[in-house]
Amino acid sequence: MVQLLKVQNFNVSSDGFGAGENQSRERPFGHADPATMFSWAGATASWPNRTDPGGSRGLDDYMTRDFANNIGAEIMGRNKFSPYRGPWENHDWQGWWGEQPPFHTPVFVMTHYQRPSLRLSDTTFHFVDADPATVLDQARNAAQGKDVRLGGGAATIRQFLDADLVDTLHVAVSPIELGGGSRLWCAPEELDDRFHHDIVPSPSGVTHHLFWRR
Amino acid sequence: MVQLLKVQNFNVSSDGFGAGENQSRERPFGHADPATMFSWAGATASWPNRTDPGGSRGLDDYMTRDFANNIGAEIMGRNKFSPYRGPWENHDWQGWWGEQPPFHTPVFVMTHYQRPSLRLSDTTFHFVDADPATVLDQARNAAQGKDVRLGGGAATIRQFLDADLVDTLHVAVSPIELGGGSRLWCAPEELDDRFHHDIVPSPSGVTHHLFWRR
Repeated sequence: MVQLLKVQNFNVSSDGFGAGENQSRERPFGHADPATMFSWAGATASWPNRTDPGGSRGLDDYMTRDFANNIGAEIMGRNKFSPYRGPWENHDWQGWWGEQPPFHTPVFVMTHYQRPSLRLSDTTFHFVDADPATVLDQARNAAQGKDVRLGGGAATIRQFLDADLVDTLHVAVSPIELGGGSRLWCAPEELDDRFHHDIVPSPSGVTHHLFWRR
Repeated sequence: MVQLLKVQNFNVSSDGFGAGENQSRERPFGHADPATMFSWAGATASWPNRTDPGGSRGLDDYMTRDFANNIGAEIMGRNKFSPYRGPWENHDWQGWWGEQPPFHTPVFVMTHYQRPSLRLSDTTFHFVDADPATVLDQARNAAQGKDVRLGGGAATIRQFLDADLVDTLHVAVSPIELGGGSRLWCAPEELDDRFHHDIVPSPSGVTHHLFWRR
């Protein structure tokens, strides 16, 4: 059984930034406004954080609906997990997602700073200091035959792309410019030498870029 | 828990026919050439009948990948199940799909002609003579909280649309004209008074029409 490594619903600005500058506890995406960046996803029926009924069931919903489909583990960078940098001062910070994180699988957080695993509902965060190939091996074992999601941020996705470990990417490009921050690419076509590439404009205003290995 | 009734991956020609004229055992889609109509789906990695590895993982694959997602039962017309019309002469015909049908759920076949239920691997076909609302109730009970797929053909989908029982539709329009056969619509815009409607052209040449209730 092939276990893919998949980027799903990763959002960047039209100039290729996954988050703005000066990320902080108050501004998880730095100077980027998440309400604008992610409005396409929040409008869908299948958005994992949706609490009220309703929501759209068109193209964008196919993207959010696929978020958990056959996914058995996630890998994320430390900067997706936390706004703090350097050694952990304590273990009070438990991620952005409250008591019920939307992952429902093991999550491997890449960090140079050791920390005990953390269980919140049906999500368990493991903190690992290792190279991408090693972390991917750990995540695949934990995924029990299912695929592995690569959750970001941009620098973490770049690491795995540089190691040629990514099988598919779905990146939603929002029609806003950030001018600076955490960069995924200068242009999506940078990946065309290694990946097939469907470009799918959505009525919501974002453009979905879908890549899979050549 | 809402249990949707969903049309998924239903294919029509550019002039709105789901199958051609003169359906027979040798020509399940009548004068329509299934190789041309469905080539977009067969090229994807997630096509349920795929036996060889590989396949595309772009936009079209999101559509085929969603086929079994949270589906607990299917409803189909008798003309999808069988090329024969009128009373069953015997029970030798067991559908088009061999010993391992791709449904993996209960399937409710709408027919005026009674016949015992038929189990093939993890698919069980039930033959029911009832109106759409009654059949949908039966399928929802069998689906155990999951959604119900409305599998076609075109006349069966029309019956459920006329009874206003359909929640979402995905119809793939292939760039070929049939000129006659089993008609779903004259134009997709016929549904716009009751449904939101995303129109999504695919690089493969088909156009995906995605509808959900207003």
